[in-house]
Amino acid sequence: MEKVFDNLGIYLDEHAERPVEQDLIYFERVDNGESIVLRNDLSCQPSGIKSYSAHIGICKEGSADFTLIVLDKPGLGKAVYTRSLSCSDAVRFDRENTRVGNIQSLCVISKNANVFTPSAKQDILHIAQQVETVTGVPITQQLISCTGVIGVPLPMDKVVSGIQSASGNLEYGQLEASANAIMTTDKQAKMVSVEFDGIRIAGFCKGAGMIEPNMATMLAYYFTNAVIPAQRLEAILKRAADLTFNAVSVDTDTSTSDTVAILSTAEREMSEKDIENFERALTAMFFKSSRDILGQAEGANSVIEAQVSLSTSFEDARAYAKKIINSPLIKTAVHGSDPNWGRVVMAIGKPMERNSLAEINPEQLRISIMDEVVFNYGAPLPLQLDILSNRMRAARTVRIKVEIGAPVYTAKAWGCDLSEEYIRINADYTT
Amino acid sequence: MEKVFDNLGIYLDEHAERPVEQDLIYFERVDNGESIVLRNDLSCQPSGIKSYSAHIGICKEGSADFTLIVLDKPGLGKAVYTRSLSCSDAVRFDRENTRVGNIQSLCVISKNANVFTPSAKQDILHIAQQVETVTGVPITQQLISCTGVIGVPLPMDKVVSGIQSASGNLEYGQLEASANAIMTTDKQAKMVSVEFDGIRIAGFCKGAGMIEPNMATMLAYYFTNAVIPAQRLEAILKRAADLTFNAVSVDTDTSTSDTVAILSTAEREMSEKDIENFERALTAMFFKSSRDILGQAEGANSVIEAQVSLSTSFEDARAYAKKIINSPLIKTAVHGSDPNWGRVVMAIGKPMERNSLAEINPEQLRISIMDEVVFNYGAPLPLQLDILSNRMRAARTVRIKVEIGAPVYTAKAWGCDLSEEYIRINADYTT
Repeated sequence: MEKVFDNLGIYLDEHAERPVEQDLIYFERVDNGESIVLRNDLSCQPSGIKSYSAHIGICKEGSADFTLIVLDKPGLGKAVYTRSLSCSDAVRFDRENTRVGNIQSLCVISKNANVFTPSAKQDILHIAQQVETVTGVPITQQLISCTGVIGVPLPMDKVVSGIQSASGNLEYGQLEASANAIMTTDKQAKMVSVEFDGIRIAGFCKGAGMIEPNMATMLAYYFTNAVIPAQRLEAILKRAADLTFNAVSVDTDTSTSDTVAILSTAEREMSEKDIENFERALTAMFFKSSRDILGQAEGANSVIEAQVSLSTSFEDARAYAKKIINSPLIKTAVHGSDPNWGRVVMAIGKPMERNSLAEINPEQLRISIMDEVVFNYGAPLPLQLDILSNRMRAARTVRIKVEIGAPVYTAKAWGCDLSEEYIRINADYTT
Repeated sequence: MEKVFDNLGIYLDEHAERPVEQDLIYFERVDNGESIVLRNDLSCQPSGIKSYSAHIGICKEGSADFTLIVLDKPGLGKAVYTRSLSCSDAVRFDRENTRVGNIQSLCVISKNANVFTPSAKQDILHIAQQVETVTGVPITQQLISCTGVIGVPLPMDKVVSGIQSASGNLEYGQLEASANAIMTTDKQAKMVSVEFDGIRIAGFCKGAGMIEPNMATMLAYYFTNAVIPAQRLEAILKRAADLTFNAVSVDTDTSTSDTVAILSTAEREMSEKDIENFERALTAMFFKSSRDILGQAEGANSVIEAQVSLSTSFEDARAYAKKIINSPLIKTAVHGSDPNWGRVVMAIGKPMERNSLAEINPEQLRISIMDEVVFNYGAPLPLQLDILSNRMRAARTVRIKVEIGAPVYTAKAWGCDLSEEYIRINADYTT
């Protein structure tokens, strides 16, 4: 059992034999230390949420490519978005709405990102008008996401028919169908939910690992019955996403549509302790969702966890951790189960634009792989390479730990290995 | 015939049928416009340079892994180095010497980077002392480079024997053997030389593309007979390296040993016009060397050239160009000959730490692939995908051109495709 974050009681119980989505994740309640286990499904979804999912013909195959979710009444909605400079008009639309007020509906179109097409902006407005007509939810209380191929105009006639079909077909308790409808090349739906003391949170996400626009982007939606002040929710969402979704990378490529949103049905009032437990629960759920994305990353066989401790700042620690998980040569070494710590030395040495990091003194550096120290303050340690290699091969998560100087701040980041299959999926693609 | 840089008369004549090293590169003299073609060998090396190369047993196979080069007399030596925070002690040693004064010798050990080993620093000093003993060149007028695996102590007894064997065996006109001795996993030696008006420049480099420490790093050395003031040479070297070596990337991984050095035998005085021609010649040679590295990159089949024009600054233009060549999804698309311009939209949108680049307005964006406009100020253009794909497949260099707003500044960057072979070479590596 691994403790995931130093200051939050969140634990991971993983087994290489079962699918990554079936691993168990717990959090400890701040008030009484009780362990709450996350459900790997949507069995704890809040009530008062109707949805409709369908194949409306965006993609040729028969899988669902459209979902519309409507809350019985508007509640607080907040989100974090891609920082892409080429972000989609759906993201711009959502950003405006979550900045201002309450949210009551969410419409997701998959297999087409509606990005950099001639009428992208007008199409989003048209979708919003149609959703308002069918559901009565005003345009300013809606979220819209599109995910898939870039630069191909949305078949608006199909989208409009899809929205109109939702009329009379919205049903309670059908979020699992929505979780399936938002997928692109994902192997399966990625779901999580939890209940404690009547507080419910349920969420699902998509992302085949390739955080990229042509076949997959990362979208994640969470629903709760909790009543929480807007600024508190915003701060919790930001902290939780920062520790999890923002610490994950598959291939350094950034999507134009990434969105992590949370909507509230506003049924359950919360005490201060409840809010603290809520933050732990949400962080644990975000950790699970982002890890499910990595676990299903196209071509990936294992998760890479980099943990870096140093003396200057948390941001520096995370910058180093990200250098490790983003290095193609570390990703290929992990793919080959090669405990090649020289590549870690290389990766942490990579110059960065932002951080004016100091040169690394070997005397102040310790590197561990799978908790085995391989470089200890100036001296490489003798290794039984085949044993360590076998441990890497058998593990779900390959752990690389770096300490530089006196460790005060610690950060983690997660990535995945880079395999021939990644190349095949992304290169041998019919034009 | 492609013009390589807008403001310098440098041209590339490439043919997909011949090896990349055999492509022809010209520069135009600033005084009379005459075209000078670079030689793809070391036939124009300056006189007064002795060298010795040998297999001293750093690697098991019989290929040369050691070279010592000594100039008849000390001359100006300047270099640019890796910006790695984990840089080698050889780089620290060289940095000090090229900062201060003249250089008379260069010793390169390949197959071992001598980085992050317990006695790395002492070993460099020991090598310098031995070179001084054998050649009489003082420690402060030497350069030393090591390249290869990280973290493995140098077999100093073999290195010392190697240096001693050089005594009495240094010979004139043997730089080609040195070009071979510095290789690690390079397919073949990469050489270039030129002569005009009695000015000679000759150089060679190594780098199997993977700018990484375990199997290859980028080292490049140039020798000239030209007399040139130190500050002028430093400025020319910096400008030339910035346009070429610093605009090239294979896998974003940065070596601990990268060095580009130029040494002068100080035989030929230069006029102001000579110096201008010298800068063109050196830039063209650096372009050839960096391109040879890309052309031989492990697993790579084609060069990617990204050219970005925009209104704000050259640095911004280059930041965008580098985002394009470093995107794994563009590298895999090029590998699959897929003219997937959606990935270019994604890549230029990737957020950066340093540059506060503005959001990209589709109306202000034009993208071309192989000189065919695929996205024109807000509108994707209809494409004959198979024809464009075939042109990409047949080309040595796949050219991607991006214009954002009113183009004032233009920058280029070069990369290569990402293939299954890259994964195999870097993953299936016996531990």
